[in-house]
Amino acid sequence: MSAKPDGYRSTPRAAVIGLGSMGLGIATSLRRGGFTVMGCDTNATTMERFAATGGQGTATPAMAVAGASVVVSVVVNAAQTEAILFGHGGCTEAMVDGAVFISCATMAPEAARRIGAAVEAKHRLYLDAPISGGAQRAAEGKLTVLASGRTEAFIAARPALDAMAAKVYELGDAVGAGAAFKMINQLLAGVHIAAAAEAIAFAARQGLDIRRVYEVITASAGNSWMFENRVPHVLEGDYSPKSAVEIFTKDLGIVLDMARSEKFPVPIAGAALQMFLMTAAAGMGRDDDISVARLYAQITGTNLPEKS
Amino acid sequence: MSAKPDGYRSTPRAAVIGLGSMGLGIATSLRRGGFTVMGCDTNATTMERFAATGGQGTATPAMAVAGASVVVSVVVNAAQTEAILFGHGGCTEAMVDGAVFISCATMAPEAARRIGAAVEAKHRLYLDAPISGGAQRAAEGKLTVLASGRTEAFIAARPALDAMAAKVYELGDAVGAGAAFKMINQLLAGVHIAAAAEAIAFAARQGLDIRRVYEVITASAGNSWMFENRVPHVLEGDYSPKSAVEIFTKDLGIVLDMARSEKFPVPIAGAALQMFLMTAAAGMGRDDDISVARLYAQITGTNLPEKS
Repeated sequence: MSAKPDGYRSTPRAAVIGLGSMGLGIATSLRRGGFTVMGCDTNATTMERFAATGGQGTATPAMAVAGASVVVSVVVNAAQTEAILFGHGGCTEAMVDGAVFISCATMAPEAARRIGAAVEAKHRLYLDAPISGGAQRAAEGKLTVLASGRTEAFIAARPALDAMAAKVYELGDAVGAGAAFKMINQLLAGVHIAAAAEAIAFAARQGLDIRRVYEVITASAGNSWMFENRVPHVLEGDYSPKSAVEIFTKDLGIVLDMARSEKFPVPIAGAALQMFLMTAAAGMGRDDDISVARLYAQITGTNLPEKS
Repeated sequence: MSAKPDGYRSTPRAAVIGLGSMGLGIATSLRRGGFTVMGCDTNATTMERFAATGGQGTATPAMAVAGASVVVSVVVNAAQTEAILFGHGGCTEAMVDGAVFISCATMAPEAARRIGAAVEAKHRLYLDAPISGGAQRAAEGKLTVLASGRTEAFIAARPALDAMAAKVYELGDAVGAGAAFKMINQLLAGVHIAAAAEAIAFAARQGLDIRRVYEVITASAGNSWMFENRVPHVLEGDYSPKSAVEIFTKDLGIVLDMARSEKFPVPIAGAALQMFLMTAAAGMGRDDDISVARLYAQITGTNLPEKS
């Protein structure tokens, strides 16, 4: 059995819609995984950055998905997801038979179910697949994906998931489960960032050596993944956005909306959301999410380290 | 140089005041470390349990500290600490010259400073030394100690600390620093327990498989030490107290009092305290602290696992 000559078999094609830091990283990982990748974003600067990495851009989502077996949507929310699917230049009709739409935006489970049903009504496959891990892991193909959807959708998505992710949680065949797991994670992540901000600013106010506080807490029962990951930004005085305050005004907003619609009280998440809103209101919405610590410091006249 | 015969050199003596699960474990560890240990507790049942482990009990703190180079106080709060030092049968006057009082109770830094100063005014050494780690690690001599105090106090306490603890953080010579670090830890620990309760009950309400939620979250950015440690109690339906709700109504109460007196807002800790108070008010104050999840479940008509 002789091998076929190079180029004899066509490479698989993927489309990435939304080329922010996460989408750009995913596009890079998909190329590394052997895909020819077309990309699309409404922002011209973002498109230029994509082109600079060797990416092929298109003017509309519909143009990007031509011939693609996989469409990865890496936009911000449900509204943007619906726009790229069903809006002007939207891609649903343009997707080829058997192609799968992998929806990575964080959204309410109800929104995921609504969008998934609309896509399936057009005889396209849909995978509810929120991601976590940040820009660097996106570029390395080491994201975590919280995925749910039909078996056929998983099968069609598999080569792309393998290229994008270090870990894919398969959370059942019901679209909405991936979204629900992601929202539980965001509830906890948001509360833990706000709590880390409150604690480290309160420690500074008491005159404690906050580097020592970091050392003690990260070895103690008060630790969280977010405390360990975010407090170093406070210690360095570096609030350039690794992940912005506005991500959590959005995501905790979704948590609060979900909870209210189910008559489920979430007072801890509610308090955390108010702190993110206060931080955004004070002009730090696009800064790093641990800027909540700066808000506590500003309000109380507490000194935190400044960037050297 | 020949070794002295056995018994020629007298063994060091220690007193442990407060023989609850933590004090009992510390007494055991001190004996293992070569101390002769006298113990004292106001509760008769607790004293019997101490005697059953081979402990020598006394009627008052003053009697327990006779001849002891180290006095370890393992009571609940500042008021009890003051009572065993200065109340009827209190031990300050009875302590031998050069003995150190190791104060393990969680309390406000201001209370630690007040008590430390009063002890030092009587020419006794004082170590501000809150502990963490739970009953099992107390019995194994593997506690974490957050300690501050004069160099002489550290020197006198060293043999006992070595027997009690796997890790001693030396947080400076100012009494109150140990207490302040402990309160920062308790702020975070309390918020994280309440957040874990809110998140896991909300997940159950949405019909998610909460064992799967535990698996996903503990591998994700939403994780905390407390989520990982406490949520298994919910999965097992086991609310027998490893650490009780009332510990956090107390400790977050101290955090809120400290913060208010310094005009420092702590809305996240405040929301968490209310949830612990609500859980205690509903009759679960002496149950495991993750009972906050049961409160959410009861209020919202959500099913959580029951103990098999």
